[in-house]
Amino acid sequence: MTDSITLSRIPAGTGHDQPVAAGDRPVRINRRVRAKKRVDTRTTLIRLGTEMCTERGFQVTGIDEILKRAGVPKGSFYHFFASKREFGEAVIENYAEYFARKLDRLLSDPERRPLERLAAFTQEAQEAVAKYHFRRGCLVGNLGQELGALDDAFRHRLEAVLLSWQKRTARCLAEAMAAGDLPAGSDVERLAEFFWIGWEGAILRAKLSRSTAPMEHFAEIYFGKVLT
Amino acid sequence: MTDSITLSRIPAGTGHDQPVAAGDRPVRINRRVRAKKRVDTRTTLIRLGTEMCTERGFQVTGIDEILKRAGVPKGSFYHFFASKREFGEAVIENYAEYFARKLDRLLSDPERRPLERLAAFTQEAQEAVAKYHFRRGCLVGNLGQELGALDDAFRHRLEAVLLSWQKRTARCLAEAMAAGDLPAGSDVERLAEFFWIGWEGAILRAKLSRSTAPMEHFAEIYFGKVLT
Repeated sequence: MTDSITLSRIPAGTGHDQPVAAGDRPVRINRRVRAKKRVDTRTTLIRLGTEMCTERGFQVTGIDEILKRAGVPKGSFYHFFASKREFGEAVIENYAEYFARKLDRLLSDPERRPLERLAAFTQEAQEAVAKYHFRRGCLVGNLGQELGALDDAFRHRLEAVLLSWQKRTARCLAEAMAAGDLPAGSDVERLAEFFWIGWEGAILRAKLSRSTAPMEHFAEIYFGKVLT
Repeated sequence: MTDSITLSRIPAGTGHDQPVAAGDRPVRINRRVRAKKRVDTRTTLIRLGTEMCTERGFQVTGIDEILKRAGVPKGSFYHFFASKREFGEAVIENYAEYFARKLDRLLSDPERRPLERLAAFTQEAQEAVAKYHFRRGCLVGNLGQELGALDDAFRHRLEAVLLSWQKRTARCLAEAMAAGDLPAGSDVERLAEFFWIGWEGAILRAKLSRSTAPMEHFAEIYFGKVLT
């Protein structure tokens, strides 16, 4: 799809419909400005979609409400995404990348011993959940619960996201083992999987009880018993 | 609300509109028959609602689809429930009771040692999840994930249901401790809470991976490490 075709599909009133000046140079600039605006709007929609899906799940998140919050006119959604499904995939991708950056930052902190890094992650997650008044959980957990109504492609994507977090966690546990902080011969892949199985449950329970206690409780037993 | 008023609100075509015979005795019988049919229909709606909410969650479960599946005419929903919310409460209640009976049956089985009873529960749950092709999870888990969009009364009810399961589990663990199968001085309440935190996560992950392996994995570490 060329830039001009894309733009021509955007109706009046979206803020993308400035008149195109005659001549090569101004047109190029306008196109660039409009393309940037288009990207910005798309980013805003994904950000709002991520927020809302993290609170409520995918199916119940209304496109109209997202457009309203973004100040984008009703009906222009399909200029940005081919379908709600494509939008959902973009939201998952956005969340997965954000979360991978967070994990990478925390789990490769050279100032801390490996297990302290994972503990720092559980600590930061508790703060984040409390910050959003226990309304936001984990996007992957939320969408995972909806699977009865979602399709296989979504399922595979969500599972792949969890596996990527698990892989990072296993690497951190392997470093802990190398440093002598975890018993030699520990199955780090399996221990990392256990972490993510329980952690998603702990976030769900934190939302339900409006308290970080379940997350703290899970972390305490994980570090105190499971990893020993 | 009297019986006759209730019935008079049920429109033609619901199967509740048989002509009322003259005389005392036939009217009483008809009333009884109709009241029974009404109760049966209500029960069917709750059962279908439980199935659908267990697969998809509450918000996305459409009343129209439930009525269609039940063979009840569109528009007659409010003869059975004051609101979708009241329906949701009835669905939670139904699930909570069904699950409490299941737990009571398994956790008080005199043929097994206490920890074997809890292990039998995790086994039966794996079979149930596989039986429904990993489409159905835990109703409490599903609705818990939707909390950003549900209200406090729902939240308290779901938390209370989980606490009631936890209490039964703690009782079973206390019996295990009394039998010497769990270290003396174990905090059974806390261990029961940990079980339900992780178990909900394991069910979610089983749905995601279409495999009972996460449930088996959680149970293995729970019995092999956490309870030791």
